[in-house]
Amino acid sequence: MAQTKINLGLIGLGRLGQLYAEYLAYAVPQARLVAVADTDAARAGSIADAFGVRQYTEPLALIDDRQVDAVAIVTPTRTHFDLVKAAAECKKAIFCEKPLSLSLAEAAEMKRVIERAGVFFQMGFMRRFDKGFSEAKKKIDGGTIGKPVVFRATSRDPHLPHLECVHPENSGGLFVDMGVHDFDIARWLMGEIESVHSIAGTLVHPELKAIGDVDNGIVSFTFVSGSLGAVDLSRNGVYGYDISADILGTEGTLRVGYLRETPLLVMTKNNVSHDTVPFFPERFGQAYVDQLKNFGENLLGGQPPPVTIEDGIEALRVALAATESYRKGDTVQVSSMTAEAGGP
Amino acid sequence: MAQTKINLGLIGLGRLGQLYAEYLAYAVPQARLVAVADTDAARAGSIADAFGVRQYTEPLALIDDRQVDAVAIVTPTRTHFDLVKAAAECKKAIFCEKPLSLSLAEAAEMKRVIERAGVFFQMGFMRRFDKGFSEAKKKIDGGTIGKPVVFRATSRDPHLPHLECVHPENSGGLFVDMGVHDFDIARWLMGEIESVHSIAGTLVHPELKAIGDVDNGIVSFTFVSGSLGAVDLSRNGVYGYDISADILGTEGTLRVGYLRETPLLVMTKNNVSHDTVPFFPERFGQAYVDQLKNFGENLLGGQPPPVTIEDGIEALRVALAATESYRKGDTVQVSSMTAEAGGP
Amino acid sequence: MAQTKINLGLIGLGRLGQLYAEYLAYAVPQARLVAVADTDAARAGSIADAFGVRQYTEPLALIDDRQVDAVAIVTPTRTHFDLVKAAAECKKAIFCEKPLSLSLAEAAEMKRVIERAGVFFQMGFMRRFDKGFSEAKKKIDGGTIGKPVVFRATSRDPHLPHLECVHPENSGGLFVDMGVHDFDIARWLMGEIESVHSIAGTLVHPELKAIGDVDNGIVSFTFVSGSLGAVDLSRNGVYGYDISADILGTEGTLRVGYLRETPLLVMTKNNVSHDTVPFFPERFGQAYVDQLKNFGENLLGGQPPPVTIEDGIEALRVALAATESYRKGDTVQVSSMTAEAGGP
Amino acid sequence: MAQTKINLGLIGLGRLGQLYAEYLAYAVPQARLVAVADTDAARAGSIADAFGVRQYTEPLALIDDRQVDAVAIVTPTRTHFDLVKAAAECKKAIFCEKPLSLSLAEAAEMKRVIERAGVFFQMGFMRRFDKGFSEAKKKIDGGTIGKPVVFRATSRDPHLPHLECVHPENSGGLFVDMGVHDFDIARWLMGEIESVHSIAGTLVHPELKAIGDVDNGIVSFTFVSGSLGAVDLSRNGVYGYDISADILGTEGTLRVGYLRETPLLVMTKNNVSHDTVPFFPERFGQAYVDQLKNFGENLLGGQPPPVTIEDGIEALRVALAATESYRKGDTVQVSSMTAEAGGP
Repeated sequence: MAQTKINLGLIGLGRLGQLYAEYLAYAVPQARLVAVADTDAARAGSIADAFGVRQYTEPLALIDDRQVDAVAIVTPTRTHFDLVKAAAECKKAIFCEKPLSLSLAEAAEMKRVIERAGVFFQMGFMRRFDKGFSEAKKKIDGGTIGKPVVFRATSRDPHLPHLECVHPENSGGLFVDMGVHDFDIARWLMGEIESVHSIAGTLVHPELKAIGDVDNGIVSFTFVSGSLGAVDLSRNGVYGYDISADILGTEGTLRVGYLRETPLLVMTKNNVSHDTVPFFPERFGQAYVDQLKNFGENLLGGQPPPVTIEDGIEALRVALAATESYRKGDTVQVSSMTAEAGGP
Repeated sequence: MAQTKINLGLIGLGRLGQLYAEYLAYAVPQARLVAVADTDAARAGSIADAFGVRQYTEPLALIDDRQVDAVAIVTPTRTHFDLVKAAAECKKAIFCEKPLSLSLAEAAEMKRVIERAGVFFQMGFMRRFDKGFSEAKKKIDGGTIGKPVVFRATSRDPHLPHLECVHPENSGGLFVDMGVHDFDIARWLMGEIESVHSIAGTLVHPELKAIGDVDNGIVSFTFVSGSLGAVDLSRNGVYGYDISADILGTEGTLRVGYLRETPLLVMTKNNVSHDTVPFFPERFGQAYVDQLKNFGENLLGGQPPPVTIEDGIEALRVALAATESYRKGDTVQVSSMTAEAGGP
Repeated sequence: MAQTKINLGLIGLGRLGQLYAEYLAYAVPQARLVAVADTDAARAGSIADAFGVRQYTEPLALIDDRQVDAVAIVTPTRTHFDLVKAAAECKKAIFCEKPLSLSLAEAAEMKRVIERAGVFFQMGFMRRFDKGFSEAKKKIDGGTIGKPVVFRATSRDPHLPHLECVHPENSGGLFVDMGVHDFDIARWLMGEIESVHSIAGTLVHPELKAIGDVDNGIVSFTFVSGSLGAVDLSRNGVYGYDISADILGTEGTLRVGYLRETPLLVMTKNNVSHDTVPFFPERFGQAYVDQLKNFGENLLGGQPPPVTIEDGIEALRVALAATESYRKGDTVQVSSMTAEAGGP
Repeated sequence: MAQTKINLGLIGLGRLGQLYAEYLAYAVPQARLVAVADTDAARAGSIADAFGVRQYTEPLALIDDRQVDAVAIVTPTRTHFDLVKAAAECKKAIFCEKPLSLSLAEAAEMKRVIERAGVFFQMGFMRRFDKGFSEAKKKIDGGTIGKPVVFRATSRDPHLPHLECVHPENSGGLFVDMGVHDFDIARWLMGEIESVHSIAGTLVHPELKAIGDVDNGIVSFTFVSGSLGAVDLSRNGVYGYDISADILGTEGTLRVGYLRETPLLVMTKNNVSHDTVPFFPERFGQAYVDQLKNFGENLLGGQPPPVTIEDGIEALRVALAATESYRKGDTVQVSSMTAEAGGP
């Protein structure tokens, strides 16, 4: 690829997809957004117009577009399988948002297709590109905290997303939809997870019960190394979007995260207050941009992806094990979740 | 009791006992320290001299002292049973440090003895008197966060106490020794705990393995109300003494705890740093004092104790269930831990 | 102007100018960067190539470029006069970085030229577009703190810029170069300043003494309203770039600023530390972008500039008064600084 | 003095005096409170009863009490002169609260009397015993920040004290009453102050204008070393009691102070808030105790006082210079404030 910019097609123009369009148009020098696709024609049209690019209502047509070198897939998870397969077969480089899939069988098949096609594939886990988490990784690798022995993470959404988005058939449910981020970070910082145990409840949003999901969950887990982990997930972090983690080591601890959005303290009678981070675009906007830049650099430079399809599969495996543990009320070995057994 | 001060005898002059001597001598107007007891004669002597009070090397002798109205028991947990029984039989009012006992059978017997004797008994859980936790309780009761649905607490010691102190035979092990505080706060703020699941490991201090204890543990649990909880415990909070908790509600969240001891930021090249809370006397000194004042006020004023022997028993029951869960590798119903079944 | 993007020429490609090139190329949808100019031909060439735009080594030639609708002037202050005059005469819209000038006589002449030419002119004071300061402005206007009565600001650079940049002949010296930002914010939030008193010293960087500048200064001032203000300026905020302000009102106080760059706490033995904001691009990058977007929107939408040439003149007047006060060792009335008297 | 406790008489039972009674009774092992005096007989009686000590309505009678070894003087400043002289003549050791006096002539006479009598005299500036400020002193002396070059302090009361207390005739006015603390810390950390310049206003509490005082003031000053300083003082720190300071050095900066009282964050919709330090007893309670312990230790151990009458005189000299500067609207040399010239 002698060119200095990738001609990129963006598939999926939901909330995150629209942010991707902006990032790609304005902030990622390595990419040239040339086409967008969404099954909602009006949406595809307005975004295409806004950025002066071609529009498709049929994602497969975008993939077929001969001027498209690479695709970024930001569609509902259940569609990833078909899109990744099609893109691989068309020899397009692929960036795919998390989670890779809702099914380990599908995920395994996606991996085979990609390997067969020999296309470049990078998995989207933007937290790895956040300055907090990436600096934590460097410090762990550099020995700042000695041997890491406990991983404790919190992920809280400020409110429930649209019911359709969180429907387990589309999202995989709380442990997959939200938890997959934490499981990826846990694996990345601490190594493979051996067994998980989950508890959960529909404590705040009864409408979730009707669709078979929960709004709060706690997962505790052991790593293969013997280290311990816990993640608490919530759809009612009412106060704001709160993503944080402690990594406790033999020589020290790292704490990632922050709560304040605006650099302003309001101090009135016996009270000091500040606002909070509203949601993921504010907390991870730069991480999304840096992730896309990294995708572009790797693709242009011929470097392997730092986040692979295996990372996508393994984080999914843990998330499915966590879901299974909650359902069975028992500890689940991550290795027991296989392509044959897993998935909804 | 027409008098305005309680003549108090202090039993146990270990690290905490010595602090109690100071608190009682200087900071609790409701009490007059009149005697101290410790089986270590030198220790008893030096403390007695320092505060100008009578000394005993035999705790039962102090209990027999007719000028002693009330006793504060700050001895190793395994001795609580005999001391509480003796004090009750001598009609002395009793303040007893946590944990009440290491055995539910003993605890049940202590309760019977106290009820039979009709003596005043107040359980020591100083965190309830900390301004952070007590204010959290008020705000929950006042509806600030709506219905509390998740309790997430962290307790980290800065280093391993003396091996003798943490020996499971003396301390009950990590889940009892450290965890009982968190379980008490969890019950106090959120209601009764139904089932617990624990994981743990000896990840930092191999010497603990030899005595059958662990240095890190994570307990997740469900409340009878359906709410969820998790506590992570560590003996290697190397950076400092870190006691914190999030109580997540339908309308907001409360976060208790702090890390900085000295009101000083040291800002050098690209670095801002501060010290941390060294250990429990610094973090909870005022809470210990306020707890003793409260004991004195209740005793003098004829009010019932806000922390009862039942609170001691129930927090112990949860702690023993957590220990059992770790041993069995399975979820344990708290109600299954009975006087017949429980205890080491 | 029926077009939806402004064809913009950027003059001055020093550190800030290069940032402007990036912002304009990637982050400001309202502008199309079409040309850059710098007297350093190599620099002009490499930036022009990087962004695919025309290059000039002669700023006046860029101004003459018929495809350029508007110019952004980011050159050394002493060159602003000639460039603004030339741009106005060529009927180009103008964005001019702070400080407007080093001379009130020149500044007054620039104002006359702009008014005569009837061109759009927006003064660059990016702090007004920072979320912290802009939210403070809204809260003051909304009455959150009652009547503001004291303004106290701190501006600290992490290290001395290149001597050439800070040479008083180029920069106006500490009170103009750094202070003009604080004086602009003070005027914006609190109203006009009446008198100033300054102290200063060359306490850290003796090389500044040779060129007639100081590295630390403190300015106290009174507003026409009777309110009080103070600004402390330093070239040795060694720990990081620290821009903060307290606005104290009758009902409360607003505190703007922050110190931490990366959302990571590193907690080792009795120590918690974090990094700091390195310098202005990290602290005010988004404010610069938002300022340029605002310039673009105003120009395209026919709205008046929110930061005018008068704002540039008045902030300069205060800064020159502060300089004069330090020189004379006496309080100076801001109104005494006139076009006839002022300037170096 | 072979005894191990000082028999101490406390003179002055206003708000601070009552706190001193408590500190002396409960927290200072080196002292035995034996008598209290206040011209308000009811107050003297109730405090004396509460602590079981002798009472006097005539301070000079307490000083005459042969069982009193030392006196702590916590009366209105204008009475210090007579009390210190009487105590010195009676050969009593003296602890005297700040400010020493409102008059340099009186202060000089007090010094002569003390030296003639050869009695132990310790000046009360409790901030020196605060962990934040004392640790800052150690770090400066240890070279952590290199050479200190700028001192910037803020002192804000949460509300106006009783008018009688702040009446300039009693308190010396804002610059003396509040500022003397900051000037003492400035001298202690940075060395002698050479000249001062003040601005001030009655911006919030018009009732102060009637009695000739101001509610907000800003003092900038130069040290003999060439270093720079500024202190801003306010009676309307509405949000809470805020005492803070930055000491900026060639290698780093120290920042003393904190705002939060209770270790609790309340996090509701897009808001994180906490309470503040209510007032001086909460912020400096331990410092007052440590100061009294230090007084006791020095007296018992024959060590010289760490805070001398000269410290009292020099801080007063700066405070009077600041007052004079505000009145004259001009910079004042501290050395020009002499016993002959100074004082109200």
